[in-house]
Amino acid sequence: MTAATVSRALSDHPEISAKTKAIVKEAAQRLDYKANRIASSLRSGKTHVIGVLIPTAENAFFGSVIHGITNLASKHGYSVLIHECDELYELEVKGIQTFIGARVDGIIASLSRNTLDYDHFLDVKRRNIPLVFFDRVPDLDIPSVVIDGFNGSFWATQHLIDQGYKRIAHISGPLYINTFNDRFKGYEAALKANDISFDENLVFSGNISIESGMEGTRHLLSLPEPPDAIFAAEDFTALGILKQLKISKIHVPEQFGVFGFCNDMFSEHTTPSLSTMDQQTVLMGQEAFKLLNQIIENGNEDNSSKIVVKPLPVIRESSLKKVH
Amino acid sequence: MTAATVSRALSDHPEISAKTKAIVKEAAQRLDYKANRIASSLRSGKTHVIGVLIPTAENAFFGSVIHGITNLASKHGYSVLIHECDELYELEVKGIQTFIGARVDGIIASLSRNTLDYDHFLDVKRRNIPLVFFDRVPDLDIPSVVIDGFNGSFWATQHLIDQGYKRIAHISGPLYINTFNDRFKGYEAALKANDISFDENLVFSGNISIESGMEGTRHLLSLPEPPDAIFAAEDFTALGILKQLKISKIHVPEQFGVFGFCNDMFSEHTTPSLSTMDQQTVLMGQEAFKLLNQIIENGNEDNSSKIVVKPLPVIRESSLKKVH
Repeated sequence: MTAATVSRALSDHPEISAKTKAIVKEAAQRLDYKANRIASSLRSGKTHVIGVLIPTAENAFFGSVIHGITNLASKHGYSVLIHECDELYELEVKGIQTFIGARVDGIIASLSRNTLDYDHFLDVKRRNIPLVFFDRVPDLDIPSVVIDGFNGSFWATQHLIDQGYKRIAHISGPLYINTFNDRFKGYEAALKANDISFDENLVFSGNISIESGMEGTRHLLSLPEPPDAIFAAEDFTALGILKQLKISKIHVPEQFGVFGFCNDMFSEHTTPSLSTMDQQTVLMGQEAFKLLNQIIENGNEDNSSKIVVKPLPVIRESSLKKVH
Repeated sequence: MTAATVSRALSDHPEISAKTKAIVKEAAQRLDYKANRIASSLRSGKTHVIGVLIPTAENAFFGSVIHGITNLASKHGYSVLIHECDELYELEVKGIQTFIGARVDGIIASLSRNTLDYDHFLDVKRRNIPLVFFDRVPDLDIPSVVIDGFNGSFWATQHLIDQGYKRIAHISGPLYINTFNDRFKGYEAALKANDISFDENLVFSGNISIESGMEGTRHLLSLPEPPDAIFAAEDFTALGILKQLKISKIHVPEQFGVFGFCNDMFSEHTTPSLSTMDQQTVLMGQEAFKLLNQIIENGNEDNSSKIVVKPLPVIRESSLKKVH
């Protein structure tokens, strides 16, 4: 059956047989196709559905950002549909196609780990579907919401210095990812601002895991001049540091300071509890929706819009040398 | 503009003016409405999209189940759209409407905390859209995937008995929720199977939180005959128990045993690490998709289908009295 036949059958065209019309109509009904739905969309021009593309559902960070988006979007009369990509480029492309198929009014997205080709996002732009990125952002001229990793890391490093730690090391995430490069630079800048010379031996390149936190700590402790504090690029790494220090019988925070980044769910429950930077995930989700909503409402957009969310320090036991 | 006019314009009906046709067609194009999409759906009868309704995105449990669903669904050529309800009945209804609007081929759902009215799900059934529930399941004749809380709790309690703990208490979740009632009954049955008389003073009614774990522990310790172990209905409660025992300077596991339920992300990182039952969340998601896919493929369904996922014990430090 051709598209033309379907169209005619749906509009009761006299040249189409009653049988064909019945088949098409039943199928159309099953698919919940209704002409008045199009008529309604014609009046408002909108479906009141937005799509949110996330790299993985197995990470509390994205769950919390979604919570922020859904929360504000529902107050504005929008339904939110989420698509998880399992960190795979193929599923990311499929997610975008599904959103287009569902005729979403706009898309909020965060990149999967290995996405290097942005054609699917450029297709969204060509269709004039409003698009906003958050956290993991491509090098494209598209509005986005990110965390201020540089200043957050500067703050954390300064705090360790203020607490009296003398040799502060850093276990980074992969430095080719902007997010982690920013945190490394914030650490470096804080040392410089305090006239502490940067020692590249004190930087261990980790991979966002408990294991790399443990491995990095073992390596740093084996140096001729070991550090007495570590600023970790994120909380799983910091958790690994705490675990290794416990094994090495080094007391935190008396002998050694540890500072993380993310305020992951577990960080307040470690022993000692972990000082870290809160990423304000719910706020990030709300800001992403606000930005998208502005674009939907105003029709046009300022592609250079970049909202920078300020991370908030959460000082717990692992960095408080002075009170001990 | 009426639905009839839109239908006619789309099918190039001679009575509709060129201007109206142009408006409708442009709008239809903007909405990505295409007659051949309907024709294509007519041929396959499917959109290859399924909807997943979750109570909240701020809980690692649901993120992990989604991961299981998406993983298997994508292998079967399905896209998965997720809708978070923020534990609100209103958003649950809206989510279902959005899924119907997106013409999903099937829906997998878990109930929000206060959902008592199931009309929106009955509407899904009336439309013959395949529907499967997981974890939080209504009292309806609809296929579902649940965890075997009774036997998991029996196992945990038996383990505490085997380790030599003598008075085993239980801090429950809200007992009007089936999930938590099952766990309470499993605890009770294990005591009975070991000829240990059930003492209602040893059951504290909690509310799935760290605070209620702490409060319950304080209460139980204040009894004339306090317990020397607690089986908690879930891991946040167990975490609260560990925190309170630390404050009360009671050593775990030497003096006191603690067992949780869920294997929440943080449970391996507490001090001491928490023994718990793993809910096999990814498997639960996969089973839910398999069940849904069977219904989609076979057209009919056995409404009594109930898949029961077996929880797996994860023995860590908090319950191992014997090795100490």
